[in-house]
Amino acid sequence: MNANGTQSLSARVREFIDHRVIPVEHAVETDPQILVKLRRAAREAGVFAPSAPTEYGGLGLSMLGQTDVLEEAGRSLPGPLVLNCAAPDEGNMTLLEHVATPAQREQYLRPLAAGDVRSAFAMTEPAPGAGSDPTALATSAVRDGDDWVIDGQKWFITGADGAGFFIVMARTGADAATMFLVDAGNPGLTVGRHIPTIDAGFTGGHCEVTLERCRVRSSAVLGEVDRGFANAQVRLGPARLTHCMRWLGVARRAHEIMLGYVVDRELFGSRLADLGLAQHLIADNEIDLAASRALIRTAAVALDQGSRANQETSIAKTFVSEAVGRVVDRSVQLCGAQGVSHDLPLARFLAEVRPFRIYDGASEAHRWAVARRAVRRYEAARPGKRSHD
Amino acid sequence: MNANGTQSLSARVREFIDHRVIPVEHAVETDPQILVKLRRAAREAGVFAPSAPTEYGGLGLSMLGQTDVLEEAGRSLPGPLVLNCAAPDEGNMTLLEHVATPAQREQYLRPLAAGDVRSAFAMTEPAPGAGSDPTALATSAVRDGDDWVIDGQKWFITGADGAGFFIVMARTGADAATMFLVDAGNPGLTVGRHIPTIDAGFTGGHCEVTLERCRVRSSAVLGEVDRGFANAQVRLGPARLTHCMRWLGVARRAHEIMLGYVVDRELFGSRLADLGLAQHLIADNEIDLAASRALIRTAAVALDQGSRANQETSIAKTFVSEAVGRVVDRSVQLCGAQGVSHDLPLARFLAEVRPFRIYDGASEAHRWAVARRAVRRYEAARPGKRSHD
Amino acid sequence: MNANGTQSLSARVREFIDHRVIPVEHAVETDPQILVKLRRAAREAGVFAPSAPTEYGGLGLSMLGQTDVLEEAGRSLPGPLVLNCAAPDEGNMTLLEHVATPAQREQYLRPLAAGDVRSAFAMTEPAPGAGSDPTALATSAVRDGDDWVIDGQKWFITGADGAGFFIVMARTGADAATMFLVDAGNPGLTVGRHIPTIDAGFTGGHCEVTLERCRVRSSAVLGEVDRGFANAQVRLGPARLTHCMRWLGVARRAHEIMLGYVVDRELFGSRLADLGLAQHLIADNEIDLAASRALIRTAAVALDQGSRANQETSIAKTFVSEAVGRVVDRSVQLCGAQGVSHDLPLARFLAEVRPFRIYDGASEAHRWAVARRAVRRYEAARPGKRSHD
Amino acid sequence: MNANGTQSLSARVREFIDHRVIPVEHAVETDPQILVKLRRAAREAGVFAPSAPTEYGGLGLSMLGQTDVLEEAGRSLPGPLVLNCAAPDEGNMTLLEHVATPAQREQYLRPLAAGDVRSAFAMTEPAPGAGSDPTALATSAVRDGDDWVIDGQKWFITGADGAGFFIVMARTGADAATMFLVDAGNPGLTVGRHIPTIDAGFTGGHCEVTLERCRVRSSAVLGEVDRGFANAQVRLGPARLTHCMRWLGVARRAHEIMLGYVVDRELFGSRLADLGLAQHLIADNEIDLAASRALIRTAAVALDQGSRANQETSIAKTFVSEAVGRVVDRSVQLCGAQGVSHDLPLARFLAEVRPFRIYDGASEAHRWAVARRAVRRYEAARPGKRSHD
Repeated sequence: MNANGTQSLSARVREFIDHRVIPVEHAVETDPQILVKLRRAAREAGVFAPSAPTEYGGLGLSMLGQTDVLEEAGRSLPGPLVLNCAAPDEGNMTLLEHVATPAQREQYLRPLAAGDVRSAFAMTEPAPGAGSDPTALATSAVRDGDDWVIDGQKWFITGADGAGFFIVMARTGADAATMFLVDAGNPGLTVGRHIPTIDAGFTGGHCEVTLERCRVRSSAVLGEVDRGFANAQVRLGPARLTHCMRWLGVARRAHEIMLGYVVDRELFGSRLADLGLAQHLIADNEIDLAASRALIRTAAVALDQGSRANQETSIAKTFVSEAVGRVVDRSVQLCGAQGVSHDLPLARFLAEVRPFRIYDGASEAHRWAVARRAVRRYEAARPGKRSHD
Repeated sequence: MNANGTQSLSARVREFIDHRVIPVEHAVETDPQILVKLRRAAREAGVFAPSAPTEYGGLGLSMLGQTDVLEEAGRSLPGPLVLNCAAPDEGNMTLLEHVATPAQREQYLRPLAAGDVRSAFAMTEPAPGAGSDPTALATSAVRDGDDWVIDGQKWFITGADGAGFFIVMARTGADAATMFLVDAGNPGLTVGRHIPTIDAGFTGGHCEVTLERCRVRSSAVLGEVDRGFANAQVRLGPARLTHCMRWLGVARRAHEIMLGYVVDRELFGSRLADLGLAQHLIADNEIDLAASRALIRTAAVALDQGSRANQETSIAKTFVSEAVGRVVDRSVQLCGAQGVSHDLPLARFLAEVRPFRIYDGASEAHRWAVARRAVRRYEAARPGKRSHD
Repeated sequence: MNANGTQSLSARVREFIDHRVIPVEHAVETDPQILVKLRRAAREAGVFAPSAPTEYGGLGLSMLGQTDVLEEAGRSLPGPLVLNCAAPDEGNMTLLEHVATPAQREQYLRPLAAGDVRSAFAMTEPAPGAGSDPTALATSAVRDGDDWVIDGQKWFITGADGAGFFIVMARTGADAATMFLVDAGNPGLTVGRHIPTIDAGFTGGHCEVTLERCRVRSSAVLGEVDRGFANAQVRLGPARLTHCMRWLGVARRAHEIMLGYVVDRELFGSRLADLGLAQHLIADNEIDLAASRALIRTAAVALDQGSRANQETSIAKTFVSEAVGRVVDRSVQLCGAQGVSHDLPLARFLAEVRPFRIYDGASEAHRWAVARRAVRRYEAARPGKRSHD
Repeated sequence: MNANGTQSLSARVREFIDHRVIPVEHAVETDPQILVKLRRAAREAGVFAPSAPTEYGGLGLSMLGQTDVLEEAGRSLPGPLVLNCAAPDEGNMTLLEHVATPAQREQYLRPLAAGDVRSAFAMTEPAPGAGSDPTALATSAVRDGDDWVIDGQKWFITGADGAGFFIVMARTGADAATMFLVDAGNPGLTVGRHIPTIDAGFTGGHCEVTLERCRVRSSAVLGEVDRGFANAQVRLGPARLTHCMRWLGVARRAHEIMLGYVVDRELFGSRLADLGLAQHLIADNEIDLAASRALIRTAAVALDQGSRANQETSIAKTFVSEAVGRVVDRSVQLCGAQGVSHDLPLARFLAEVRPFRIYDGASEAHRWAVARRAVRRYEAARPGKRSHD
């Protein structure tokens, strides 16, 4: 341990993941008892709920403080779940912390931070509804006396199966939306089929959710009426960035597994690790990991300083999601036939990280936004119309 | 139909795949009866066994002739199996045609071409045996009277489970190897576990195979004693290239599915197909498909002209395996969350094509060989040592 | 020499370039006498004007026939000029051959094919005129009695300085344009400044050309009135493809120079040619060269069969222009500080090939066109609206 | 101005570059009087010699402090020269500050920091001497009484022509080297030809330097005898990183020029800035600039904390040199024919930044080192030999 608290925390998380989680990482996905035990151990080790506010039992870390911790947690696929910093709960905690009333925080945030319930964020809809273009939102909520009645079809709702409550985004005006807290037991909300995807790392799956005459009290409004889009922004940047941190952990784990392979494997009378064509891939992994981490830190600092940091988080998300894919892919490649077999976890990682270039804004949507912001920023800065050089 | 016989054949294959195979492509992988029916239909449609010699009931196509046909067959994952031009059987037919005795051809090639049995090529071994470096061959065969006794451990033997016979490569001298035909019933040969891999498209899996005191008659020698490495070359180039053809079909299918998606999907008030960032990916797919096809044709012509075409097939295999991966990946990306769900077949394709950059010589091994040949060719051409420009 | 006439021709061209042109390639760009001598030698060697029709003294090669020949010519920057198959003359010969009247062919094509004059194709205009978007054509031609009077500003007219005649594209209707043959001596046509560009390989530069009350006779109309755009298509595909052939020659020369360097250079106790990180670059060069050649051949065959081959030539141009850039860049990289010094010709090549990704349609414009054609082709093929898979 | 001193300094540098340097940036390269005036203005503006120690008249910035300042300076090619933070002087100041005796600092560092002389670092040699492999050093220094006599051939010595003194690396033992301060007037040192390179931004060129019986006093030893390699490390990391900062400025300037072009240029009825295929390139520029800056900062912090930071600076140098090349290249591409003409400065930038992937360690040499360090670090960390996952 050293003087720097955060660093020592990340060292403790690394040790916890290495010695407690990785040895049982396959079992934890199927046996809920192991998860319960591991979470207790995480609490005892002081590494539980790193993102949650301290008044609700979390470690209350800043974005920068979370950077190394969530990366370490991400080195094992169930690591973030064990530490209660997995998506979508971790992002929902951030949202509740900033937007919920005290009563809502007591009712929803406290058990969520404690790991007693899971949650879901119900925004996306089947085409042509809200997806890459959130303004296409089709689910509606209308007042009925003191209540609201929500109707609509949600799609790809991560963690829905088994969630204790849902944060539902619904249209409440021509250009306005509102967020609602809907309990799992509400008879108007039905969790439908799990959409079968190549990733399997999200507890509760990616589900279809139907809202049909779903009635909630006015106290279920999260944030203010008609402020749904603006309030969702509070969640957007941080949740995007913690995704990056966790996935970077997967990439680093893949890189470590690959290094273990190439130092042992002999080929053409040499260690694979010493062959130039392998060194090229190893070095590119190191570069991608370093650049990802540096971009995450840059965006984390901006968020901690109170900026919305849309450009920083878009850039980080686009780069990191692609870099993580490259790192895992190169690791697979260097492990050869072992890499594409399930005798190593790399093949699984390949499937787990692929969707990250699509979830939470596809690379193309982010590039489009990044370019538009760059152009607008340029236009705002130039004093009158001047020549090109 | 047109004047050009081959072209009309590929049109017939396309139609057969579109109307007969694709509608049942999921079922055919699990229900053997459907495969039997489809093969009968393929024979009736005159599209069965395109690579096999005519005297054994095949269509006897040249490499160039196979190019379009196998690409069309590859558009459905079970397509090549239905048409009896799947790996490893198709490559084994080529080998038997060129190296086997008349009696061996009658016993092994005829039923193979007819689709009555499957076969396996048992060359690769667990590390540190034969893999990227075939000269590391550890399995041995020693004479015992008139017989040979083979001992060794094979690994990643495609199609082994259920194969009627195996072509086994074994060391018979310090620098020499010999190929043997071993029947499935031989008590010295045991098919072990299926290595669990991300691809599932090869009937019979990728298996461990143990040879323990495996006794065969001298008539089981395929080709000449001690000529195993040289004779294996006969199979190498063509098998590598037919792999490219089939996988290119998968890529084209992915591209077609994606086009179907982007012309229907509306986004930001426009068809996805008309957005510039999508057009970039569509165009890159077209370029990759065209370049793959052009490189396959170049290598096919070289092989048909009697060249070993090692450089051409290495280049084609390296480029095509990577291009196919890119095409499927871009298609997934453009289909968004649908792309990574199993509601479309793209997610499956992603897993199926990934190993192709590793199987049959990893890209790095091919690049190494390509560079060495380029340097040797340069050195052979320059008249004495001359200055650099 | 062998049985195949074309192949032996390309071997003769290679020998001519190696022994006659390369030794004086720097001098030929500055000393017109050397060019005159070399052209005479080229005629004697039977390698002059490979693209020109035989009835006008050329070799009358098909597109496929030109493929290897122009690649060999391109290995020296002034090679195509020496052999009279350089842009824009070579493309203008194709245009005149197909569109000109017999009298025009006698007056313009014959001396052009003989190398007695040079020519220019005056289409592009300064923004916002005709550039990537030819329909923005601003130069106009109006009838005045039996004559036409042309007014407008042309820009980036390759070869203009010293050209004997110009093929000028001018608007003659709302949606219609006409091509005119304008002699260099016409008082209404002025060649302005050379636009200073990073490439210096085009004789006559890239110039501004002003047409001011430029009066021509009705016999100066090339092709039919108002058919300018359609007739320009005749030139488009073939000219685009011969560009690819010549530039591919530059890339191959760069690759050869690099190979000469890496086999001689010792580093870390090894030849640079044998280091894995170098082999990676060498192999990628080989792959890019092979794929470029294969795409050029594919498009050449399509053109020879009478297709407009827009998709094939767009794909070839996009891929080859980018691949050529990569090959030269990797060659520079492998030669280290020598690579960026003018002690080797690679640094010059780097500048010469860069504009090729912009000239004759930027990569982005071609990708846009390629994607649109792919989508239209897909839509035409699908029978009614069907589901995605 | 704001509370943060460094940030306000970078804002002042930006303003100085924008209003004082860029308007005369072409002239300053040819007219020494303009340089003198600009340097005086830089001193008055408090932006002169940002890297030099305060006791020698500089701003004494840390590496992190220099990051934004040198990036802003780099936006104009002569900017770093005007501000006296150009290579190789800036790196030589760092070296002298840390290794020189007080007397040497007075004699060499003081006038260098003041901008009264220039300097050169004479390490690299023609093949097979010191280059990518510094241990191949061929120049030798032998004691002769109280003096040293240096003999050898140096090559590619940046800034040599006009330098007031040279720091010469010479072999003084089987595995040992020593650095010597050699005055320009020393009769044993001759500056030879300028090696003609595609970049022209370094004052004093890249020259051949001959040392023939070059006699220096023992007081000319810089650092300790036989400690040359170790002491050169002091210069290595920081100099590599300040290179990155300056070149990043060039890339940002290219990006700005391009933005100026695309917001004005109309194409197909739209602003070029709003076309998807352009947005792709703009966004990739933004991502490359952000990742470059983030990696530079990461390495700067590590250096400021006293680490040698070899891995961090290697990674930064490799990524930034390649990213800068991509940014300039995309900017050229988006400006079309203007981009490759000298009517915009982009074509010049293209040539200036290309060598950066080779100078100061080629990308391949850095990747090799990065991979080896990654493997060693992995091996040091793993407790005994363990299995791969």
